[in-house]
Amino acid sequence: MKLALVGYGRVGRAFARLLESKRAVFPFRITGIHTARHGTALDQHGLSLEPSFGPPARCVEEFLDRSGADVMVEVTPLNPLTGEPAISHIRAAFARRMHVVTANKGPIAHAWAALRCEAERAGVQFRFEATVMDGAPVFNLVRYTLPGVRVLGFTGVLNSTTTVVIEAMSEGLTMQEGVERARKLGVTEADARYDIDGWDAAAKTAALANVLLDAGVTPLDVPTRGIGRLTPERLAELARKGKTVRLISRAKRTGRGVSLRVRPEVLPVTDPLATARGTSNLLLLRTDLAGTIGVLSLSPGVEQTAYGLLSDVVAIAREL
Amino acid sequence: MKLALVGYGRVGRAFARLLESKRAVFPFRITGIHTARHGTALDQHGLSLEPSFGPPARCVEEFLDRSGADVMVEVTPLNPLTGEPAISHIRAAFARRMHVVTANKGPIAHAWAALRCEAERAGVQFRFEATVMDGAPVFNLVRYTLPGVRVLGFTGVLNSTTTVVIEAMSEGLTMQEGVERARKLGVTEADARYDIDGWDAAAKTAALANVLLDAGVTPLDVPTRGIGRLTPERLAELARKGKTVRLISRAKRTGRGVSLRVRPEVLPVTDPLATARGTSNLLLLRTDLAGTIGVLSLSPGVEQTAYGLLSDVVAIAREL
Repeated sequence: MKLALVGYGRVGRAFARLLESKRAVFPFRITGIHTARHGTALDQHGLSLEPSFGPPARCVEEFLDRSGADVMVEVTPLNPLTGEPAISHIRAAFARRMHVVTANKGPIAHAWAALRCEAERAGVQFRFEATVMDGAPVFNLVRYTLPGVRVLGFTGVLNSTTTVVIEAMSEGLTMQEGVERARKLGVTEADARYDIDGWDAAAKTAALANVLLDAGVTPLDVPTRGIGRLTPERLAELARKGKTVRLISRAKRTGRGVSLRVRPEVLPVTDPLATARGTSNLLLLRTDLAGTIGVLSLSPGVEQTAYGLLSDVVAIAREL
Repeated sequence: MKLALVGYGRVGRAFARLLESKRAVFPFRITGIHTARHGTALDQHGLSLEPSFGPPARCVEEFLDRSGADVMVEVTPLNPLTGEPAISHIRAAFARRMHVVTANKGPIAHAWAALRCEAERAGVQFRFEATVMDGAPVFNLVRYTLPGVRVLGFTGVLNSTTTVVIEAMSEGLTMQEGVERARKLGVTEADARYDIDGWDAAAKTAALANVLLDAGVTPLDVPTRGIGRLTPERLAELARKGKTVRLISRAKRTGRGVSLRVRPEVLPVTDPLATARGTSNLLLLRTDLAGTIGVLSLSPGVEQTAYGLLSDVVAIAREL
């Protein structure tokens, strides 16, 4: 199976390394890489990890046509306000009857219902396991292991930067020092305000709500408050009472649709949500038949995001 | 699809109620129920929730033949020392080319490798999702959502009774009072010593290790220590240091095979394992590609065990 990568930053490179290391098990090859910064690389026999980039294709459409790929892997940076340009890339792939795998939460946070419909009409698969919990299964968990189950709502710690910043501030560091620590861990969005102000968490909340609860929302519909007003003093005061803070995403079905919010919440340090530390994420799914099921991703790194992409590519290969 | 139930206790009845409530979605019917205590009930058109039991079939083989079922659902009580009589029931079903779903951990804890081989040779499916984490996916999680992943080891809080007893003793109650509380919650094995002495945890540990790590062990191979010597005084002393105890199952691949143990461990109250409270279970899977992934089942009851069985029956129907 031939893959075309759009974007080749940390996640794209980790994915290429993972494919290389698993070539004996999964015979996929990357026949094209297209980036705004480096240009375009193409080779029908498969590109190396450090390919020679030529001048960029004039547009993603041209790149996809020349790649001859079966699957587009979309790993460009997120614009949480619009979901672009990833949404346009995905439509370009669908128009060429290419399957799509993305690590970019923007498209499902902004345009899930439309993209699902377009993928179905094109007869291709659209997968995005890596978007919310990196390598830990969430969408595939519900799809493959919980038949007949209706998800009623969820609660999660989905943004790593804010957790790292809260932990740093609990040690007496400033918010800015906390952001620096998160950046060194490689978990922070290009613009850290997206994390601190809650946009990243809102995008993940919208993505989950769209896919699992048919919410039909965008991140702009999620009432969101970030951690910008949190201080080391407030955290020290809470610590004396055995409490801490996490940026919590909540969603539940109501009589009139889906209720959503992202907000810093004060939690006992013994709360399962509070035990999400460092880059760890925790999602609790409330269901009708299977009770409340949690998925925890412990200290994931970019290699786990890459695995989330690989698991989707494998799923596509299996269903072909 | 026609189902034959062997055993009709709390789990079997909850499963029958669940099928009844989901009949519109999943058109399965129970054509036979066989129990040591009540006798045998048979009806090709489907049995009601409170069937009329006639005299027991002379043996499980006779019952299975008369049920005409496609799938045997095995829900007899556990004997953790031998895995019987469930193992014999399962072999009887395989001999009739019936698929098998069980909530009974004994067979995979004692005879996984042999039963897997026998199922393959008979061309039938053998499923057991409910055995370790009730309705939360563990085996199906690895099978369907983590392609290409090698599980390297696991750590878990898998026995509910000991957690309930530890919590009761932390409130100053005696162990016996804790056992009574667990019994009222319906989570305790018929003989509570199986829980307190760690046999139930050892059986789950062996089951997971056999399926996920190819360990080829029985519960007797798991070095096991229970919570029998724990006291309210010791727990009070630990609580003053911000610590508590859980009965922890551990397994990991080593150069020479698989290392296993079940033991009460002292943990900070903020440890993710310590946040498994009441009947909740938590399993952390350490993997090569997906990092460490946790599955949490929050306060499951018998309805969730029933759902675990249903999810297996649905998986069989889908793969037919």
